[in-house]
Amino acid sequence: MRNILLTISYDGTNFCGWQRQNGQRTVQEEIEKVICLIHKKPISLFGSGRTDSGVHAAGQAANFHSPIDSIPIENYPLALNSHLPHDIRILKAEEKPLDFHARFSATSRTYRYFINCAPNPLATQMPYVWPIHRHPDINRLNQMASHLHGEIDCTTFSAAEDKSLSKCRYIEKAVFYVQDDNLVFEIKANAFLWKMVRSLVGSLIEYEKKGFNGEDFKRILSSKDRSLAGVTAPPTGLFLWSVGFDGKRIH
Amino acid sequence: MRNILLTISYDGTNFCGWQRQNGQRTVQEEIEKVICLIHKKPISLFGSGRTDSGVHAAGQAANFHSPIDSIPIENYPLALNSHLPHDIRILKAEEKPLDFHARFSATSRTYRYFINCAPNPLATQMPYVWPIHRHPDINRLNQMASHLHGEIDCTTFSAAEDKSLSKCRYIEKAVFYVQDDNLVFEIKANAFLWKMVRSLVGSLIEYEKKGFNGEDFKRILSSKDRSLAGVTAPPTGLFLWSVGFDGKRIH
Repeated sequence: MRNILLTISYDGTNFCGWQRQNGQRTVQEEIEKVICLIHKKPISLFGSGRTDSGVHAAGQAANFHSPIDSIPIENYPLALNSHLPHDIRILKAEEKPLDFHARFSATSRTYRYFINCAPNPLATQMPYVWPIHRHPDINRLNQMASHLHGEIDCTTFSAAEDKSLSKCRYIEKAVFYVQDDNLVFEIKANAFLWKMVRSLVGSLIEYEKKGFNGEDFKRILSSKDRSLAGVTAPPTGLFLWSVGFDGKRIH
Repeated sequence: MRNILLTISYDGTNFCGWQRQNGQRTVQEEIEKVICLIHKKPISLFGSGRTDSGVHAAGQAANFHSPIDSIPIENYPLALNSHLPHDIRILKAEEKPLDFHARFSATSRTYRYFINCAPNPLATQMPYVWPIHRHPDINRLNQMASHLHGEIDCTTFSAAEDKSLSKCRYIEKAVFYVQDDNLVFEIKANAFLWKMVRSLVGSLIEYEKKGFNGEDFKRILSSKDRSLAGVTAPPTGLFLWSVGFDGKRIH
């Protein structure tokens, strides 16, 4: 028995998110189907967390227990990719201790959100960005984002339906930077509330347009008042970029 | 009456190419439908040339004659984009003299072909590259490509079904360069034979693997023997990058 960790990239456009759901095309189900095909028995795949419909991944992490010891670990990506649809690509396979779990062993998740600022983005960029057709003031955005550091109560940016007992998350990094025509928001935390990144991005872009500064954002954050949040940015721009397993455990 | 030139980007994934065909989803038809909607009468759109099923564009050119003089020219991209599907984006609109024609006035076409060399490309790159999972020798590729300059008989790389009377094309530029995980082949010519870019790219990558050098390629090119061409590279990696109207007319 081996415990195998996969690093997975997917194009969320044509998926109803990560998690298996009856009658829907999901990333988890597509990969489980191929793992079962290779192993000739039902095997469950454990993801580091769900991603919503339309959200992409450049480095989702998921593990499964394989009864086969004969396949060299480095052959897994090719073996799985040859059966998987092109909108899922396995980037890496590694053996882990038997008690490793992609969700419970993860110590951080990093997301990147791509905001396209060009007057008219290319059609081939559209599925992977939020086109806002203007260049926001990145300094003001980063003044606001600088308050997203450390143990933060994220209630303001939580979805009404979020069932988390605690709305506190430990944020290690939250920064905007420019990459070609895109403004990228990168955020790393121990974990995230449901739709939190999209709510944060949509709100920050809206606040910037309204001329809010860092102090305004600090007040909104500490208000824990969801009615002060802005729009929820669309799923197209969001990528689960990487999952970390080597940091300090928080909670 | 105004003659309007559009610069158009499209994601070819879900199109049966540029040219209108009964019962198929094509870029020309989608744009014509919106032009007709705005003008409330049937209007034809003239493209600089066809692109095949699955081929993308970052700068296709097409013109139409508008009976309306009241819409400011700079409003066209927004007006058209608001009705177009997201896999077509109008980047620019310009007024041209009445005798201008996107096909007959064009003096050059530039294509870029994206070859992904990473062991495993991201799922979100897959629709826009040809993944070859290795790093070819770019110097050898450019030694071969250096023979693609000037008036060239391209018979070796023409499709059997190509009906062009002359197989000669004037190539201004043909070069490979590295961009992130991709090797990009950029080629600029007065015009191209059907499937010529994909045949050239597929052949050059195959020749490089076989260890061919510049002189070998020169011999193959002058043989005019189609049986010496390699595979045709897939449409996914190909972008019609731009169309030029300011060069010297050839033919």
